[in-house]
Amino acid sequence: MISAMAKKVRGVFVFLFLTLFSKAVGDKIFSRVIVPADPAAASFCLSWRLAVEANNVRAWRTVPAQCLRYIENYMIGGQYDLDINLIVEQILIYVKDIVLLEDGMDAWILDVDDTCISNLFYYKGKRYGCDPYDPVGFKSWAMKGACPVIPGVLNLFTTLVEIGFKVFLVTGRDQETLGQVTTENLHNQGFIGYERLIMRSAANKGQSAVVYKSGVRKQLIGEGYRIWGNVGDQWSDLQGECLGNRTFKVPNPMYFVP
Amino acid sequence: MISAMAKKVRGVFVFLFLTLFSKAVGDKIFSRVIVPADPAAASFCLSWRLAVEANNVRAWRTVPAQCLRYIENYMIGGQYDLDINLIVEQILIYVKDIVLLEDGMDAWILDVDDTCISNLFYYKGKRYGCDPYDPVGFKSWAMKGACPVIPGVLNLFTTLVEIGFKVFLVTGRDQETLGQVTTENLHNQGFIGYERLIMRSAANKGQSAVVYKSGVRKQLIGEGYRIWGNVGDQWSDLQGECLGNRTFKVPNPMYFVP
Repeated sequence: MISAMAKKVRGVFVFLFLTLFSKAVGDKIFSRVIVPADPAAASFCLSWRLAVEANNVRAWRTVPAQCLRYIENYMIGGQYDLDINLIVEQILIYVKDIVLLEDGMDAWILDVDDTCISNLFYYKGKRYGCDPYDPVGFKSWAMKGACPVIPGVLNLFTTLVEIGFKVFLVTGRDQETLGQVTTENLHNQGFIGYERLIMRSAANKGQSAVVYKSGVRKQLIGEGYRIWGNVGDQWSDLQGECLGNRTFKVPNPMYFVP
Repeated sequence: MISAMAKKVRGVFVFLFLTLFSKAVGDKIFSRVIVPADPAAASFCLSWRLAVEANNVRAWRTVPAQCLRYIENYMIGGQYDLDINLIVEQILIYVKDIVLLEDGMDAWILDVDDTCISNLFYYKGKRYGCDPYDPVGFKSWAMKGACPVIPGVLNLFTTLVEIGFKVFLVTGRDQETLGQVTTENLHNQGFIGYERLIMRSAANKGQSAVVYKSGVRKQLIGEGYRIWGNVGDQWSDLQGECLGNRTFKVPNPMYFVP
């Protein structure tokens, strides 16, 4: 075995090499494979991220401290976007074979935060989730209505609307305080033509995401809709009742909603 | 943008550097972060592997051809073992809080192939899943009874048995033809002390994995067992009825069982 010091020196050396070489060649793709200073940490963080996405790690409160740089690289270095785009491709392959009826009751559900629009800028200030959840801070961020689009999901949204799906945007955000700003934010990011934006009303206060979102889906089924797909960044979007014919998990290694 | 040729040259250069540097330092950990010759392929294959583990890509028949080296590196380079071990750690954290009753009916379910014992050597000859499923080839491999243990899962198994769980090994393998050899293979790899090895009988022939395994779990529940956990490398192990209180997906990027 090699000493921790030597490992660190080696890591720094490799990082420098890759950085310099990357700059010399000037290729954007390279930013996707930045090797963080400590390969052992990167291996651990990759395992952790995989376990989060496969729903093996649950109810986690913060990103492991040693994964700060890893998650930063993942989120802004290109891999996150690639992951989203591959999932959207898979969804579109599935969608291609769906035969819609003429009754206008073929439905699709999309979550909002970190599915349609991104809170990455906010979470940058929370050390990409290494800091614990801050409800007050998050609310003032959401009040700005400045969440940027997640481009791959907007593509999906637009395609679904064009095909004729009734798209329901379902969010745990509070209707009363965040209703207007969320509507505007979605609109200014290109989410135009959805059927309904469904938000947490006074009646849903205190419900877990699974209970609240199951209730929403149950009501849509009750109205006669056929839910073909359900996309969210949290497993709590994709668990419970009336899930829809298929669910898709988009990545989010920054926070966990129970 | 950079030309494809320049990209390739850069990739080879980086690979050479990392290989030489790794050898010069002689650190095993480094084998975990081998950067394959083509960073764009590695990024794609990482997205694909994540999507498989999160159950976003389904019913896939072969590993994408461009991911052969990536999957080889993943499976034998250390990351697969790290991924397994992190999941086992998470399982043990969950297990720690379970209070077993005195009636001996607290149960746990483990899948067999690529959960308890590994088919990696066989799949090496099938280009790590880039070749399509070969039922005859797989059967003759299984008949050898030479599947090596997956060490992290044996640790889990041993701990569960020691704590007092009744561990059920549930496999889609055919009882009649593979019963004896599978029992011996599990035994010679250290799986001693399980409650029952449940295999596919004539009555289960032709059933999908979800139907067959749901039936097995339903029967155990009928016998009065409480299924606390259910671990498998396939989503079909973890879907259907009577799933257990928690399910855990261990990685398998080499094949998909519907």
